[in-house]
Amino acid sequence: MRRIAQVIRVKPEKLGLYLQLHKNPWKAVSEQIERCNIRNYSIYLFGDQLFSYFEYVGEDYDGDMARMATHEETKLWWSLTDPCQQPVEGAREGEWWHEIEEVFHQD
Amino acid sequence: MRRIAQVIRVKPEKLGLYLQLHKNPWKAVSEQIERCNIRNYSIYLFGDQLFSYFEYVGEDYDGDMARMATHEETKLWWSLTDPCQQPVEGAREGEWWHEIEEVFHQD
Repeated sequence: MRRIAQVIRVKPEKLGLYLQLHKNPWKAVSEQIERCNIRNYSIYLFGDQLFSYFEYVGEDYDGDMARMATHEETKLWWSLTDPCQQPVEGAREGEWWHEIEEVFHQD
Repeated sequence: MRRIAQVIRVKPEKLGLYLQLHKNPWKAVSEQIERCNIRNYSIYLFGDQLFSYFEYVGEDYDGDMARMATHEETKLWWSLTDPCQQPVEGAREGEWWHEIEEVFHQD
């Protein structure tokens, strides 16, 4: 299992929409997340930052993320959520959510 | 089980010390964290922010946190780590680590 944490910004004028969408997640998207081997997935809000934590239980993270991006309902979902977000300063070229460094872990 | 995420700032000039301490956690402190019903505890670094995620499996969070603060080795540990940190803007009165809002979760 690999733990992953990421950050992204939410556009303040889109925060209400983002929160409302995430109060009503789509079943098809949840199922795709599950199929792509993501577990225990949480998103937190701090100011205009979103902080996510999840556990990847598969064996091909890049492959599973690429597979996620081929799923029709997931693409539709992202067509709503992506305009609510923008990468943080410090994101790498091509990154959307920016992966951050684990500095401590205790089971 | 209750999931908790928190944020605090790290003083840039103290980052090296903070990271080095957390590469070498003290066994007595880890045991106290365990006794106080904290599980799956991770800390991440983003810029000068630290994000923590953990799962509380007890039934008296405030009581357990108060108990944590009576433990001699933990107090000694904090005497080293506290000077590395400062609360974020937006922290509530008396908060050290600032608890942030969960906006999505999927098991």
